[in-house]
Amino acid sequence: MYLTHLECPRCNATYEPDRLHNLCACKSPLLARYDLDTLADDVQRSDMERGRDDMWRFAAFLPAAESDIISLGEGMTPLYELDGLGGALGIESLMIKDEGYNPTGTFKARGASCGISMASRLGAECVAMPTAGNAGGAWSAYAARAGLDCVIAMPEDAPEITMKECVLYGAHTYLVRGLISDAGKLINNACEKYGWFDVSTLKEPYRIEGKKTMGLELAMQLGWRVPDVIVYPAGGGVGLIGIWKALDELQQVGWIGEERPRMVAVQAEGCAPLVEAFERGDTESNFWDNAETLAGGIRVPKALGDFLVLEAVYASDGCAVSVTEDAIVDTMRRVARVDGAFLCPEAAAAVAGVARMREDGDLESDEEVMIINTGSGLKYSDLVESDLPCIDKDEAILPPGE
Amino acid sequence: MYLTHLECPRCNATYEPDRLHNLCACKSPLLARYDLDTLADDVQRSDMERGRDDMWRFAAFLPAAESDIISLGEGMTPLYELDGLGGALGIESLMIKDEGYNPTGTFKARGASCGISMASRLGAECVAMPTAGNAGGAWSAYAARAGLDCVIAMPEDAPEITMKECVLYGAHTYLVRGLISDAGKLINNACEKYGWFDVSTLKEPYRIEGKKTMGLELAMQLGWRVPDVIVYPAGGGVGLIGIWKALDELQQVGWIGEERPRMVAVQAEGCAPLVEAFERGDTESNFWDNAETLAGGIRVPKALGDFLVLEAVYASDGCAVSVTEDAIVDTMRRVARVDGAFLCPEAAAAVAGVARMREDGDLESDEEVMIINTGSGLKYSDLVESDLPCIDKDEAILPPGE
Repeated sequence: MYLTHLECPRCNATYEPDRLHNLCACKSPLLARYDLDTLADDVQRSDMERGRDDMWRFAAFLPAAESDIISLGEGMTPLYELDGLGGALGIESLMIKDEGYNPTGTFKARGASCGISMASRLGAECVAMPTAGNAGGAWSAYAARAGLDCVIAMPEDAPEITMKECVLYGAHTYLVRGLISDAGKLINNACEKYGWFDVSTLKEPYRIEGKKTMGLELAMQLGWRVPDVIVYPAGGGVGLIGIWKALDELQQVGWIGEERPRMVAVQAEGCAPLVEAFERGDTESNFWDNAETLAGGIRVPKALGDFLVLEAVYASDGCAVSVTEDAIVDTMRRVARVDGAFLCPEAAAAVAGVARMREDGDLESDEEVMIINTGSGLKYSDLVESDLPCIDKDEAILPPGE
Repeated sequence: MYLTHLECPRCNATYEPDRLHNLCACKSPLLARYDLDTLADDVQRSDMERGRDDMWRFAAFLPAAESDIISLGEGMTPLYELDGLGGALGIESLMIKDEGYNPTGTFKARGASCGISMASRLGAECVAMPTAGNAGGAWSAYAARAGLDCVIAMPEDAPEITMKECVLYGAHTYLVRGLISDAGKLINNACEKYGWFDVSTLKEPYRIEGKKTMGLELAMQLGWRVPDVIVYPAGGGVGLIGIWKALDELQQVGWIGEERPRMVAVQAEGCAPLVEAFERGDTESNFWDNAETLAGGIRVPKALGDFLVLEAVYASDGCAVSVTEDAIVDTMRRVARVDGAFLCPEAAAAVAGVARMREDGDLESDEEVMIINTGSGLKYSDLVESDLPCIDKDEAILPPGE
């Protein structure tokens, strides 16, 4: 256990890690800090190359003790190449880190595993959150496993499959006639009234620590180095912030050098507050009115951690780009057909962002690009048509094309 | 590359591995054989404890050369405990090997990765198969990745999500008014007419080699030993045969001893040909008329490899048990609620089979039990209700129970 304290990245206030905390008094999210000098003395990077088949292999960089861990085998997801699409875009190496191969089918499982492990350890009895869908599924599953009550509020237009997950795992689930921000206010009010622990995005400090393991893993998987570019579909942006934090910690313990990937945040044209802020050169985003995109995970009008996302983008000489709805759907289909991968629409947006960067001359063909597929496309089968021929058993199958 | 030849387990005929083969002349499936003595000289089991994050870490035990591999990061799935349900059933260790965390969400990805790698290497241009659903999704994905044509026939009542997968990956997909056996005949006829390679279950020898990696992995994950009992939901039974073959090969190279788990095949009462054969003490099963169960993956009236499944069950002092439809659905819900895992109905049947064995006195509390969750429950969300309260943004969220 190398966790020492929580720190506010905005006002530098510090907090003890031994009890439940939400935001800093200044309303900023809090970040977990570790005694990385001692960690570097105790642990070698080669120690990480074998061990548990889940993200807790990296327990030295995480806040929970062995006995606290609530795990369903999350993390240690594979990398593979999109050779077909990469070739079409003129990119030598276009890699996917596939977070669809996780409990509940998304990278939300990493945050939920770490967040619930800590909430349970620190005495929470009921956790509550608003969600666009996938986070609700993940936190409901881990809360069930930990024996915690869980209250979920989601917009009535959230994907039905995520509603079903919450119900199946026994969460107390409400649909809300409104946006995720409306659901957030309802949860906030209920938490104040009933003393539930609010686990909304970045309102507690440990979800990001779980997400951070994506960065720890990808560096190890590349042989303790980083790709040239990491492309991330940014909604709340916790994954991007987490990866950035991971690389910083890996450098501090001397396991990687000072090279950093360019961090690219991709959003949909119908909800692009980070892109707008980036284009203005601002360090915070404005609330995006009438947010609209079929990629629900990036339909976030104003992220609590927007300043941290933009900080990483600027510091890494990265960028923020937006893509159309048509590009998202077309890319999803194209990647499936040429590379056999069923990406979620958010990751399809990220791949479309790569295509856009190539068109705009913002990406060289020899840059090694890694895209985070934040979830399995199987949760988005509504986007696929299946109008198929139906034949009798005495009919015949014809060759493709006939 | 340690592959030496293909062998018929029924008549012992041998075949060269360098060209496409279907069944033996005697109509039995063929099995791949390796030069395990040389493998044992060249490779140590500790070499397997680090490396690729997918099943191809075990390439020494597989037929494809590095350059042949068609991979989407399949395998190396985690183990975790069902403490809640295990406690309720009075079992000290009830483990899941979760094959839902795979490309296309099921263990079918292992077989497809190996099968397509070899079909592509050996010159197939078009692969064809009947499927109840999940195999179609997996083989379509890997065929797309390899650039092969793929023809799929499935009963019209197959899960819609698997139809969509086939379409998305660009397979030429037919629905058939009939059973999977009718679809199989249509595929067989088309393969004979057009020269397509028939990749039906066990009709080519390499799907089982991919499935075998489950056995290699689980032994490594337990520290090069085996659990007391492996419980497997048996449809075609390839996974069970593959695990059994893996343990045999691991013993031959000296990486495990001669201990074997009791191999348990679980089926649904509405389609239990292997259970019926087991209860009669027979070495083959009879065709099960009017097969009926909501767990489509185990709705197989007569498996081509039935004799191999029963051989493993008898040799290991295992058994075959059947469970009711109600037990399947109840178990799926209960495991989600107490342990946070969304099993597929086939695996829920396996867990229900464990409960039945406990009731019948066929399982001791200190036996270490491992269940193969053959796929993600996310592909079966139809089985979950989601009739949720919908509130306005000026209403209030109430505590659980009110």
